[in-house]
Parts: sequence; structure tokens; C-alpha cells
Amino acid sequence: MAHFEKQLSSEEIFAGRVIRVTVDKVELENGRTSTREVVHHHGGAGVIALNDRDEITLVRQFRYALGKELIEIPAGKLEPGEDPFDSAQRELGEEAGLTARTYRKLGETIPTCGYDSEIIYLYAAKDLDATKQHLDPDEFVSVFTMPLSEAVDKVLAGEITDGKTINAILMLHTLRERGEF
Amino acid sequence: MAHFEKQLSSEEIFAGRVIRVTVDKVELENGRTSTREVVHHHGGAGVIALNDRDEITLVRQFRYALGKELIEIPAGKLEPGEDPFDSAQRELGEEAGLTARTYRKLGETIPTCGYDSEIIYLYAAKDLDATKQHLDPDEFVSVFTMPLSEAVDKVLAGEITDGKTINAILMLHTLRERGEF
Repeated sequence: MAHFEKQLSSEEIFAGRVIRVTVDKVELENGRTSTREVVHHHGGAGVIALNDRDEITLVRQFRYALGKELIEIPAGKLEPGEDPFDSAQRELGEEAGLTARTYRKLGETIPTCGYDSEIIYLYAAKDLDATKQHLDPDEFVSVFTMPLSEAVDKVLAGEITDGKTINAILMLHTLRERGEF
Repeated sequence: MAHFEKQLSSEEIFAGRVIRVTVDKVELENGRTSTREVVHHHGGAGVIALNDRDEITLVRQFRYALGKELIEIPAGKLEPGEDPFDSAQRELGEEAGLTARTYRKLGETIPTCGYDSEIIYLYAAKDLDATKQHLDPDEFVSVFTMPLSEAVDKVLAGEITDGKTINAILMLHTLRERGEF
């Protein structure tokens, strides 16, 4: 049986630069009503770039919401209406200083389905060329490379914890094992 | 070099049942100030349970923020101060009707590091016994099993899109390939 919830009303609580928040009243399958707190977000795109030595490019940056630095694949927010693949290519250039001649879509990952509309579009890239890193003046990011096999080890050891980055590393690892990228 | 952002002030915008939202003023590395929209969340716990036939237990439920059903591992929100492992065991029982004699921590995954404090604690479980599913009256969830290998295929085919579920499936798959679980 398909499950559903029907929107009865929606009240906007906050409209910010990154997120919008609403509190909605919904009708459940049993006819009762409940409320849903919803974070609305335009989504993001990320790219795991593999060089000819089987190394991936990662970035280290401070994440204020967690109060610490995280290791991540290059990624960024979508502009409203922006094609995720355009965004992935832009972030790879701006954050990591790379262009790629070969891309493969890895999939769409929904990070926080319980209360957040965000979708992150993930891509793998190879056949890389260096271009010029171009960060915003207020963006502070350290770029480095790591063997893909070491990144898999660090995921399993709990040293890489960013969800989209874990997904991308293990997706690419599984594809490579199957000879599919 | 370590990156950082220093909190200058924090304004609470919304305090709900699931999330709290603040808009904070921060000082950046270059001395300039910026704002950070932050979703505060107590975190969650999820568990991927593997039976003796190499099948995992999954749940299908409607996710209002996305407007569709998703396939997920059993998971739930932490109560404030709750031990994530207690929560994982509770959710496995309540949602999937299972207890497990063997657990392994898979790691902590940060789903939405750009603006959300949420951490999801992931566990793998095996040596399962059936108990009684015990859903809340307003919780509608369909439980089913799927071979782990088929779940990996569905991740790579884009048919399983929930981030924590992709994390857990590929972590368990990689551990099993290494003979570590």
C-alpha cells in the first residue's frame, strides 16, 4: 500500500538566504491531523574527481553548524533553477581548480528526509586538467588529494563523516571494483 | 592551517518540536563578519540489519518534505541526551520488529553540514530474532527485506536515494567484502 500525507495548510516561519522554514498542517492516513516542520532548500551538487594515480580531490573547511572542520568532496548550493551538472562543474573548478573530460552521474542523495527538502546531486569525474582555483573572498578551503583506497579506509574508521562525501567515496569505490568507471 | 569561524551573536528564529533555527553572526578568518543560518537538531540513529540469508530489512514511508515515499533503514530521532545505541536498538524493534545479538558501530554521518547540526549514528546488526513491531498510532511504515547485493544495485541505479541508507548499505557491503562483519 502506498503511504501519503496531505497538506492542509502551510505557514512560513523564516525565509533566509540559504533556507526557508515552514510549519505545515497535514492529514495522515488514519484521517488524523499532525504538524510537519519543513526546511526548504534549493539543493546542492558535489563531485568526486579521480586522477590518473587513483587519488581523489578533497577539501577541508570549517562547518559552523558542527563547530569543526570537515573533509568533503567539492560541492556547493544550487542557484534556483540551476542545472545540477553545471553546478558540479563550477564547484570543481572554483573549489578544486580542476576541469574534467569525463563525468558520470552517481545519483541523487537525500540527506535529511525527515524534515528537509534538500537533494544533493552527485557526480564522478576523471580525465582531469588543472585550471585556476577561484574562491569567493569569504570562502576558506584547503584542497588536497588522497588515494581512493585510503579514503575508503577513513570512511570505515570514522575519520570521514560528511554524508555526501561518504556516499560519493563508496559509490565510486563500488563502481571501480565493478570496472564501471 | 586550521580554518575557523567565531560566533559573535545568535538569534533564535524558531523553536519547534523537531528543529530549532538560529541566525548567527560570525567572524571569518579574514576578520570580516558574515551570517550563518543554522538548523539545530538532536540527531538520529539508524540500523542496517542483516539476516542469515544476506538480506537487509528496509522500511518504506512517506516523507512529507520530499512529497514522496522513500526506502530507508529503520531509524529515528534521538531524545535529548539519549544514547544513540539505545535509540538504534529501540527503532529496530519498534519499526522492524527485530532484536539483534550482534551489533557493530558503522560510524557517525553528518547529513547536511552546511547549515544543520544533525549527526546520524549508524549501526550494523546481525544474528536477528523476531519481536513485535510497535509503531506509534500516527506512524505508517511498510517493512520488507531485500538481498544486500540487490540493495547495492539499487543504490547505484538511483532507486535508493536516502542518504543515511546509502551510507549504511555501502558501508556494510564494503565491510562484508573485507570479511569484517
